[in-house]
Amino acid sequence: MAERRVGLWLVGARGGVATTVAVGLAALARGEAPTTGLVTESLGPLGVELGLVPWRDFCVGGHEVRPGTLAEAARELEAQHGALPSGSADRYAAELAAIDARVRPGVVFRSGSAIEALAPAGCVAPANTAREAIGAIRRDLEEFRETNQLASLVVVIVSSTEPPTDTSAIPATWDGLDATLDGADCALRASSLYAIAAIESGAAVVNFTPSQGADLPAIEERARRRSVPLAGRDGKTGETLLKSTLAPMFAARRLEVLSWVSHNILGNRDGAVLADPDNKRAKVESKERLLETMLGYRPESLVSIEHIASMGDWKTAWDHVHFRGFLGVPMSLQFTWQGCDSALAAPLVLDLARLIDVAARRGESGAVGALGAFFKSPQGTTEHALGEQVRALDAWLRRPR
Amino acid sequence: MAERRVGLWLVGARGGVATTVAVGLAALARGEAPTTGLVTESLGPLGVELGLVPWRDFCVGGHEVRPGTLAEAARELEAQHGALPSGSADRYAAELAAIDARVRPGVVFRSGSAIEALAPAGCVAPANTAREAIGAIRRDLEEFRETNQLASLVVVIVSSTEPPTDTSAIPATWDGLDATLDGADCALRASSLYAIAAIESGAAVVNFTPSQGADLPAIEERARRRSVPLAGRDGKTGETLLKSTLAPMFAARRLEVLSWVSHNILGNRDGAVLADPDNKRAKVESKERLLETMLGYRPESLVSIEHIASMGDWKTAWDHVHFRGFLGVPMSLQFTWQGCDSALAAPLVLDLARLIDVAARRGESGAVGALGAFFKSPQGTTEHALGEQVRALDAWLRRPR
Amino acid sequence: MAERRVGLWLVGARGGVATTVAVGLAALARGEAPTTGLVTESLGPLGVELGLVPWRDFCVGGHEVRPGTLAEAARELEAQHGALPSGSADRYAAELAAIDARVRPGVVFRSGSAIEALAPAGCVAPANTAREAIGAIRRDLEEFRETNQLASLVVVIVSSTEPPTDTSAIPATWDGLDATLDGADCALRASSLYAIAAIESGAAVVNFTPSQGADLPAIEERARRRSVPLAGRDGKTGETLLKSTLAPMFAARRLEVLSWVSHNILGNRDGAVLADPDNKRAKVESKERLLETMLGYRPESLVSIEHIASMGDWKTAWDHVHFRGFLGVPMSLQFTWQGCDSALAAPLVLDLARLIDVAARRGESGAVGALGAFFKSPQGTTEHALGEQVRALDAWLRRPR
Amino acid sequence: MAERRVGLWLVGARGGVATTVAVGLAALARGEAPTTGLVTESLGPLGVELGLVPWRDFCVGGHEVRPGTLAEAARELEAQHGALPSGSADRYAAELAAIDARVRPGVVFRSGSAIEALAPAGCVAPANTAREAIGAIRRDLEEFRETNQLASLVVVIVSSTEPPTDTSAIPATWDGLDATLDGADCALRASSLYAIAAIESGAAVVNFTPSQGADLPAIEERARRRSVPLAGRDGKTGETLLKSTLAPMFAARRLEVLSWVSHNILGNRDGAVLADPDNKRAKVESKERLLETMLGYRPESLVSIEHIASMGDWKTAWDHVHFRGFLGVPMSLQFTWQGCDSALAAPLVLDLARLIDVAARRGESGAVGALGAFFKSPQGTTEHALGEQVRALDAWLRRPR
Repeated sequence: MAERRVGLWLVGARGGVATTVAVGLAALARGEAPTTGLVTESLGPLGVELGLVPWRDFCVGGHEVRPGTLAEAARELEAQHGALPSGSADRYAAELAAIDARVRPGVVFRSGSAIEALAPAGCVAPANTAREAIGAIRRDLEEFRETNQLASLVVVIVSSTEPPTDTSAIPATWDGLDATLDGADCALRASSLYAIAAIESGAAVVNFTPSQGADLPAIEERARRRSVPLAGRDGKTGETLLKSTLAPMFAARRLEVLSWVSHNILGNRDGAVLADPDNKRAKVESKERLLETMLGYRPESLVSIEHIASMGDWKTAWDHVHFRGFLGVPMSLQFTWQGCDSALAAPLVLDLARLIDVAARRGESGAVGALGAFFKSPQGTTEHALGEQVRALDAWLRRPR
Repeated sequence: MAERRVGLWLVGARGGVATTVAVGLAALARGEAPTTGLVTESLGPLGVELGLVPWRDFCVGGHEVRPGTLAEAARELEAQHGALPSGSADRYAAELAAIDARVRPGVVFRSGSAIEALAPAGCVAPANTAREAIGAIRRDLEEFRETNQLASLVVVIVSSTEPPTDTSAIPATWDGLDATLDGADCALRASSLYAIAAIESGAAVVNFTPSQGADLPAIEERARRRSVPLAGRDGKTGETLLKSTLAPMFAARRLEVLSWVSHNILGNRDGAVLADPDNKRAKVESKERLLETMLGYRPESLVSIEHIASMGDWKTAWDHVHFRGFLGVPMSLQFTWQGCDSALAAPLVLDLARLIDVAARRGESGAVGALGAFFKSPQGTTEHALGEQVRALDAWLRRPR
Repeated sequence: MAERRVGLWLVGARGGVATTVAVGLAALARGEAPTTGLVTESLGPLGVELGLVPWRDFCVGGHEVRPGTLAEAARELEAQHGALPSGSADRYAAELAAIDARVRPGVVFRSGSAIEALAPAGCVAPANTAREAIGAIRRDLEEFRETNQLASLVVVIVSSTEPPTDTSAIPATWDGLDATLDGADCALRASSLYAIAAIESGAAVVNFTPSQGADLPAIEERARRRSVPLAGRDGKTGETLLKSTLAPMFAARRLEVLSWVSHNILGNRDGAVLADPDNKRAKVESKERLLETMLGYRPESLVSIEHIASMGDWKTAWDHVHFRGFLGVPMSLQFTWQGCDSALAAPLVLDLARLIDVAARRGESGAVGALGAFFKSPQGTTEHALGEQVRALDAWLRRPR
Repeated sequence: MAERRVGLWLVGARGGVATTVAVGLAALARGEAPTTGLVTESLGPLGVELGLVPWRDFCVGGHEVRPGTLAEAARELEAQHGALPSGSADRYAAELAAIDARVRPGVVFRSGSAIEALAPAGCVAPANTAREAIGAIRRDLEEFRETNQLASLVVVIVSSTEPPTDTSAIPATWDGLDATLDGADCALRASSLYAIAAIESGAAVVNFTPSQGADLPAIEERARRRSVPLAGRDGKTGETLLKSTLAPMFAARRLEVLSWVSHNILGNRDGAVLADPDNKRAKVESKERLLETMLGYRPESLVSIEHIASMGDWKTAWDHVHFRGFLGVPMSLQFTWQGCDSALAAPLVLDLARLIDVAARRGESGAVGALGAFFKSPQGTTEHALGEQVRALDAWLRRPR
């Protein structure tokens, strides 16, 4: 079979997740990394049948609004208690430099003051209106596709969390939304503009962040019309992964959850952006929605995310679940999760790039609910329980063509 | 529909679990208890269709080798940081006394020195051989059935854990086993004699303990021949429930578990019996088998169960899971489970009594694998993952008759 | 020796702490309670020499702004997972009723909307100015003293936390402050008015809450002039007790604390009042001050206190300490503290009543720094480390008269 | 002042602690390491007055029974989640090689099968009797002292834990013990032979392990006679450090500890040696003795130490403290300590080398109880509470000469 190069365009191209994706892909392409954490590596013959993109056939580029190089970003992760294996930046210097050469200045558009503070003038593509920004992004995507002779293109949003979008201010149809793109009061934020530009250029879109992205009826409508598949939003990597695993257990045993408290501390740039109350609100809302869906009732709940610089890229979550058993006897479960954010997210990004490419080749368009297992706020499905999501994914993978 | 009285015979009739079953059933029959923790209460119309026994139609009796009354046992639980709601012993004094009147001296047979130490001479039915013990038990069951005009009978083993049975010394066929029942070297322990007696008298058998009970090919063969359904063994109530919930998550995300350490402390009589190394071995083996099945490989693992008197009926488990993600980055999950053993076990015993009665009415015999969700070492299935077990149970419940 | 009755006047007379004090004192007087948790019970012959008030010689009264009875408050605590032993309200009904008869309507004065919402009109003593409030309080204290023929009187503030007082608006001298007491813009809150009233009537003052109370130069000056001893503020009962124990260990080993995160959840009325951001601020500030004092530098730190109703009177604190050892190797300590607020606070209140009575008899006046071991924000000392505080207390107790 | 070279002889010269000592000393001598974790670096002018040995004036050698080089040992630690900073082995290659050249084959003498399994024939000094072993060790020490023109010599035992010594079989006087040194049934183990050899050659002895070492009346007698100071045993680095910090808090508040459970998991060679039940017993006994001393009564207690290879040099301890407060209300404290064993131990070894050198220069001999803060089973004192130990050390340091 002739080689089929697939583009992987990372919005937030030098953040922790993107950097780990870049290093990981280089290591996988050279056969130097184990496949731990990569869900699509467990498919065996089915993976072959699905035509999963081999790791070496991905070509990576992206948008970034911060200065620096991928090697610098990798060194920073190495220094954070081993968030990347020691020596990674040196070993994969060539691959990282090649990607750096394909990174373009991103757009900043209602991204919130925390993100805007990170972005010096030279790193940002100027745009007066939403439509101008979409145009600029689209030109970068198309240049990337042509220069590298890509058979297909996947855009993955891994940039820092924006403040919540005021969805009430956004028309529900594409025509309605389209009409606002030139105005000064267009309520869309950058993540949605990236999604629109990708869709317009025929690229699949994965939103791994809590930002709004393509999660709007008008944008989903446009994706369906343009035959582009979407997946999102907010990668389910840590504390929420556990929640969506444990809550079904309480439901299965009819143990009544009285309260579920979740405190998260983390120290990376994402954490710093979340210290801004506006940006944090988006993240917390995304995390709080799940319990009611899985339990069938709404227990007391509290979610905090706090920036503690000393933690680096490591996130520690402490959860306290207070519940009631037979005859009302109160009990509790506590857990502490100590995970490295980038190392948890990066393999899921790689899996998603492969899987949305499958969806694109199958001709699916709009939100692909079968990918819900990867997200905290899955588009295209109302299922949050991990077990059910894994089964849905499996059924989708095995669906006869 | 005419009332259909169902017998619930508890082996270990005044232990913590049995006492909580007795109080709970009294409270449910009077409509004074919420249905928290009772899985069969979530079935709605399906429950009606299945003809689940109403709580007030259960008639409770049992065997016990220790002196005392149920009211005393209930008061002891009340005093243990609320393992039973304060005032339970007084409120349900009449119901408890009625059960006490139906409790008969149990048998002690190779039960291990820890259990034998608990049993004064007057509380034990004399038996020189296994066959004599079986006969004595059977007479009690049949008297219970006749006196109370029971339409059906379920025997549930909730006595303290015995040492492991030497299964290599036990013939694989019923005829072979039957030939050993008169000899001095019959390797069966009491729990298996109870199971045989129940089967011979046509009663369904649930083994909620790690003891061997009916989990032997020869006994299963006999159950099939006598058309008796079986379920066992070792109720999945706490730390193992969590393990069977969390291990599939690690598998689904291909996070590699390096080690899984589980330390359990508890202070009730069960704990004291487990302080005897022989009895503990049975319990620990039961808990260690799961991980390999669910993960597909065998991580380092360690399980301890220790008796700490101050904890009373409360079990605290601390688990430390060391795992590796993408690019080999090491991470960890710890949890602390603080649960009340009796309050976790009792509703499952009640559910199992209802469900094995369904199996009996459907004419099922031998091990009912569909009830695997309730057990640490399920008979009749190799599935340990809670999610899959819950689905299997659901499918079984909905199976057209 | 002739009996010497000592008055114990509780501001917040039916709150959780006061209720536990009342039940505990009744139990101690009858010889029905162990002396667990009572520091002054370990003094042996020294206690006799110091003339510690025997428990039966305390006479309790107080102010309260909420309706209800002590028996009701006690029953509420009993129901909260055993915050009081089951049956306490009934057993000590007579003693509780006797105290109820001595409770007077309290004052509400700049107490914050959270507290004001709890106080119906009939339970509050009317007061248009600070001076009127002081007068009303003082009349109650003096009536209490006379009616009960008290040799001495201790006022202990155990009411809900007020918002922080604007101390910059308060004159530094008594004369200056005195001149503001009639004005509409007097910045004092109720806790300080109670303290002034007590001082004016010659009663010792203990402030067990984070509210300002007597912790103002002008009020301390007045106490010294009136020969009244003071102790405060904010009882060190749980998470801060641990902090002041553990921080000196890090200092002693020169382990560098990078960050110290403390999350507290609790469900009692105090917690509800703290859900009001103004009131919470006072409490959090009180908790954050310590680390720098004990470590000699200021690590990153975060303290949260959140109201989770299901926890009742139980407070669970999770602390995560991130520190660095030799050659910069990062390590961590986490702890979870599960304590019952009232049961931790009440014995300290009783100890303080005894000890400030010793100070009064010794003729000490103003803030008694030797009592710092009992407080999160000790008045009269800058020492926060528990070990040093315990030594200072010991030296004070043994000081020759 | 003329340079005064001090010898630091490490028994177990390529174990984790010794390797970290070697790297750390090299880094300190070059001024490349912060002084975090070094207690003697906080003394300021007092340190100067005491004549603390500057780091660059230490000359390191030692005994080892395992093959390999320090650089290899350092690389192994680097790979264990950063137990040494990445790049240490390369950066300090010259210093490590210089030490390697001074390492001599150690003796194995009743060291237990776990240790003996680590020691190939070529790495062990042959010795048929205790006296021969002592002689061989002594010759190495004296050669080290002469070759390097050392003003003074400190021997620190940091080798793996031996099984407990049968102290009942060992004469209480030096003359009695001396008479057994040629016999086949001398009950001393290697650690005690090292101590004797050091004493005979006039070197101070620090025993940082739970092995018996110099902790025998006959050996202490000999040390006093030879004017040699001793310190030991079993470095207080982690879970016990916390115990000796927290237990005094419970005592100070008269909170009654009902049970204290401590589970430790660790994965380094020390852990492997502890997996041998004989060796573990010594360690556990050392840890269990403390509570009674500090609390004044003996709560239920349980200590486990288990080898989990995946943890590498990281030790995780989980402690569960069950206690009772006022009116018998039960509460709990749990903590999880995640520490790097070598990084915690190494600076204490360096501090002890400096401080025992102070003792030697002051002419002290026998067990120096003032160094008790560094040990789990301190010789020369019965004080275990960290706070009191720190004060005793401080007083000793400030003692006028």
